[in-house]
Amino acid sequence: MKLYTYYRSQASFRVRIALNLKNIAREDSYLHLEKGDQFAAEYRAVNPQMVVPTLLDGDVKLFQSLAILEYLNEKHPEPPLLPADREARAWVRGIALINAADSHPLIVPRVRHYLLDELQLGQDKMMGWIRHWLDAGLAAMEALLGEHKESGQFCHGERPTIAVIALVTQVTPAKTFDADLASYPRVMRIYDHCMAIRAFADAHPAKQPDAE
Amino acid sequence: MKLYTYYRSQASFRVRIALNLKNIAREDSYLHLEKGDQFAAEYRAVNPQMVVPTLLDGDVKLFQSLAILEYLNEKHPEPPLLPADREARAWVRGIALINAADSHPLIVPRVRHYLLDELQLGQDKMMGWIRHWLDAGLAAMEALLGEHKESGQFCHGERPTIAVIALVTQVTPAKTFDADLASYPRVMRIYDHCMAIRAFADAHPAKQPDAE
Repeated sequence: MKLYTYYRSQASFRVRIALNLKNIAREDSYLHLEKGDQFAAEYRAVNPQMVVPTLLDGDVKLFQSLAILEYLNEKHPEPPLLPADREARAWVRGIALINAADSHPLIVPRVRHYLLDELQLGQDKMMGWIRHWLDAGLAAMEALLGEHKESGQFCHGERPTIAVIALVTQVTPAKTFDADLASYPRVMRIYDHCMAIRAFADAHPAKQPDAE
Repeated sequence: MKLYTYYRSQASFRVRIALNLKNIAREDSYLHLEKGDQFAAEYRAVNPQMVVPTLLDGDVKLFQSLAILEYLNEKHPEPPLLPADREARAWVRGIALINAADSHPLIVPRVRHYLLDELQLGQDKMMGWIRHWLDAGLAAMEALLGEHKESGQFCHGERPTIAVIALVTQVTPAKTFDADLASYPRVMRIYDHCMAIRAFADAHPAKQPDAE
């Protein structure tokens, strides 16, 4: 499979983890989002939303990281990234969406550029914005983990799911942006457990060939 | 089922459409997001993220609209909200996420309040922000519909899917905030077709008992 990716993209990070967990080989095509590679006509023809990741599986074009994770899980069921139980699946998908829908989209490059370039808010207010929304997501995850009896070393059960993939990719930017993570002990226990697993560690932004 | 909802919430709108399409009866519990009902301790115990919707199916608590739609579709398979074909499912989920992950979260009340109260940007810049992100999502949907051979009266195939539910809930706020919709003829054709269907029309924000 061919992955259009950027090392710092949390959504690309999610897809890299899933591909690693399922032992699917990939070829990377690197875009530098801060330099605007995503706006080039060539990439716009691949992904009209001009965001990463895009995954090509032969001539099947896949976009939006959570849709890609569901596709990979359906096509390559082992190891499963969703629980067998319907109610647990809903919980796992809900946790994933707290990151992928309600936190991460607020801090991506295009939003940071709008805050800095269009609204001229300056670096301090932009950093405050980022920490505010990362914190909101982390606090929600921490509370939900506390009330979920199946959470332990992972978000649910004894293996990685899309929930824990999203948790890890919520923590990584929080570390980059110096958020205070001590308030989220359940989240951090799970993060540390996952980052000791090779499929997660190898997918980390700092480990990518395009990392600066 | 019991739905914690707010008439203007686009995420609640998505769940209302799905429940209507599947002919599932619901009891509504209304929260007024502009008055801060979502921050009350009683609701925080239900939904630690302090957002709507939350859906209770007996003692099963469901959160995040797309996770709820997947759950409803798994428990009540007819009529299906996802295509039978795996590649089509990925496309449908991707379209849904363009709205639910990359557009709508940027314009919800908590974000608008941050822009107005915390950043003191004023109404004009806030409206510019809203239109900018609604446009980005609509433009991506329009382009993707143009390259998808199965798009017609709906986003995919001959019946509603989670993609079209997300498209409708992308257009509704765009109308509220006076976005220019003439640039999105494919999107608007589908929107108009859907809003003539009772399950969609009855779920519209203006039709809810808590509408002002």
